[in-house]
Amino acid sequence: MKVSAEGIWSRVKEIREKAPVIHNITNYVVMNNSANALLAIGASPVMAHAEEEVEDMVSIAGALVINIGTLSRDWIRAMHRAALRAAKINVPVILDPVGAGATAYRTGTARELIKKSPPAVIRGNASEIMALLAEDAKTKGVESTMSSHTAVDIARQLNKTHGSVVCVSGETDYIVSGDDVTKVKNGHPMMTKVTGMGCIATAMCGAFAAVNRSFPEAAAQAMAVMGIAGEIAADNAAGPGSLQVRFYDALYKLSEKDIKHYLRVEG
Amino acid sequence: MKVSAEGIWSRVKEIREKAPVIHNITNYVVMNNSANALLAIGASPVMAHAEEEVEDMVSIAGALVINIGTLSRDWIRAMHRAALRAAKINVPVILDPVGAGATAYRTGTARELIKKSPPAVIRGNASEIMALLAEDAKTKGVESTMSSHTAVDIARQLNKTHGSVVCVSGETDYIVSGDDVTKVKNGHPMMTKVTGMGCIATAMCGAFAAVNRSFPEAAAQAMAVMGIAGEIAADNAAGPGSLQVRFYDALYKLSEKDIKHYLRVEG
Amino acid sequence: MKVSAEGIWSRVKEIREKAPVIHNITNYVVMNNSANALLAIGASPVMAHAEEEVEDMVSIAGALVINIGTLSRDWIRAMHRAALRAAKINVPVILDPVGAGATAYRTGTARELIKKSPPAVIRGNASEIMALLAEDAKTKGVESTMSSHTAVDIARQLNKTHGSVVCVSGETDYIVSGDDVTKVKNGHPMMTKVTGMGCIATAMCGAFAAVNRSFPEAAAQAMAVMGIAGEIAADNAAGPGSLQVRFYDALYKLSEKDIKHYLRVEG
Repeated sequence: MKVSAEGIWSRVKEIREKAPVIHNITNYVVMNNSANALLAIGASPVMAHAEEEVEDMVSIAGALVINIGTLSRDWIRAMHRAALRAAKINVPVILDPVGAGATAYRTGTARELIKKSPPAVIRGNASEIMALLAEDAKTKGVESTMSSHTAVDIARQLNKTHGSVVCVSGETDYIVSGDDVTKVKNGHPMMTKVTGMGCIATAMCGAFAAVNRSFPEAAAQAMAVMGIAGEIAADNAAGPGSLQVRFYDALYKLSEKDIKHYLRVEG
Repeated sequence: MKVSAEGIWSRVKEIREKAPVIHNITNYVVMNNSANALLAIGASPVMAHAEEEVEDMVSIAGALVINIGTLSRDWIRAMHRAALRAAKINVPVILDPVGAGATAYRTGTARELIKKSPPAVIRGNASEIMALLAEDAKTKGVESTMSSHTAVDIARQLNKTHGSVVCVSGETDYIVSGDDVTKVKNGHPMMTKVTGMGCIATAMCGAFAAVNRSFPEAAAQAMAVMGIAGEIAADNAAGPGSLQVRFYDALYKLSEKDIKHYLRVEG
Repeated sequence: MKVSAEGIWSRVKEIREKAPVIHNITNYVVMNNSANALLAIGASPVMAHAEEEVEDMVSIAGALVINIGTLSRDWIRAMHRAALRAAKINVPVILDPVGAGATAYRTGTARELIKKSPPAVIRGNASEIMALLAEDAKTKGVESTMSSHTAVDIARQLNKTHGSVVCVSGETDYIVSGDDVTKVKNGHPMMTKVTGMGCIATAMCGAFAAVNRSFPEAAAQAMAVMGIAGEIAADNAAGPGSLQVRFYDALYKLSEKDIKHYLRVEG
């Protein structure tokens, strides 16, 4: 897949012009960050988690972002309800399986969400993605490529089974779809010292998916924009506090020139 | 109504001296922002939403701020309980109907809160305020001023029915009370790119209402202080990340000179 | 107790190397701050409050931080469950009784938590700590030192009854354990104008307790690091907005030289 600076820039402009509503059912820790990042790039964030309103809210949204970072029963029910409605009306769902693998509750919830309403995009770090494949799938899926059990192999398996684009993020982000693996090499190590940068990346996938129905491309564009804004923000930053502030500024002021200058993607 | 720099300054000093407790039942996204803004202006924010404690908490408060930005059943019950208690002990209630009009759940909740415990002040953007008038009220309220169905007309109607001061915020903020409409022209467009600025404005109305029982004036003073701090913060800001940081700084350092220099109000 | 710059520095390095998981069941207002501060000092924050997963989560943690700042029934149940599990597997529990004394609900919850699962460390301001002693304990505990009813006296009483190290924080922080009272004099008044600085201090106690099983020392080290980072951040800060940003930067860049230069502790 070809991810070009021109393509990214045209989608950034589209987000700024259309200001798509991004419905987030996300964790308490990062709600504020996600909202600020979505506003800074030009989208219209909304947070709503009550079962009574998630179907109404997703109906006016360009994408639904589900993040399991701080779960509870009511929220899980709302996530399922919103995702089912999204599927019915063709609103792309982006899933962030925060902490999958750390507790059975998270792993189970993430798998159940994927099974019942396969997301357009799943974004997580390597250990989260590796936790998503059910045990039986792992044993059944005995392929040579599986033997290494790397996150990208698991991503491929998940993509085959559920059709979701899978983004394994880290120093290099791998966007997996079919036989295609796109590598986004943008970003800065200090970003890992700011809480919620991963969750913001997922929200950003929502913004790009809202204007770009080619989901593998949308995910790669979102990850590139995250990384580029992070690099700009980290430049001369005194630490992670400053980086976060400058990150929103960088998203807000992101220009075609910035994208051309910084973009490092391998197709 | 006359809103003067001297009057605003005297109330800012009073907030700083008395540090009134502002009890917030507000949404998850902006809790941190609201608390920081209230601290920066000199008030004492407290967040409490459990039915078991909201009556105790509102009893030690100078104002109660209710914000429906991230609703759920338990929270709505607590909002009603706190508002009823506030009415009984004469603590002013400030309501922010975030997202009214977007879902039936929010619209219904906001209307119910207004009906059961008419707030001292309602603050929302034009579309939120316009969603607050019940359909039957709209059809019954066929007046010439209603025919245009602008937000200010609806505000006037709400004020007549419930007695609440209604603040319609936007590029110009309209504070509606009886036949009086005060226009606050302070503020900066980049403030709309920081999440929760509207919610902070509502919390700020709480701080001013806690020291000024003339609620139309308190609301106008709060909106002026918001806008002035926003203008100071936006000056030379590199983007919305910087603006937010500088906004708290500006509230904290706000001087009589600043207020006199920036204030743009039409009575 | 001797709290030295060398000792603090060696623990900071240990936190950065081991990146201990700190499980927080904390209030909505400060989750983001706590996570960012823990990341900046080098720990690995995780937030989880569902009864279904708190036992799993605390099992992979180096410390459990419980903060009652925004309570509700489900959260209290999860706090108890996590604390009991922590006790069983020897994970230190740090308690922040936010708002104890303000409502019966908070006071009762804090006391119950202390009684059922005595924390390794309790950190609160003077009025919160003073609210923790049950009425009957107060009347029964008629000692000469109790007659003054200062927070430090109450802290001593709590320590005797439950064994918890008690940190009474304020302009000077008092760390009380047995007959020992350590005074940490670092910090800056502007820190009180940033929401959650107390809650961050509690989280920081978790980070230090995760690498230092001498809990009185760990608490004093955490409070010293808080105060030192706060002083560095306040230096030339334009206000509380800037202070918060610079605070994370200061934690992230904290050096042995900083600690030696700023440390003000009395044993």
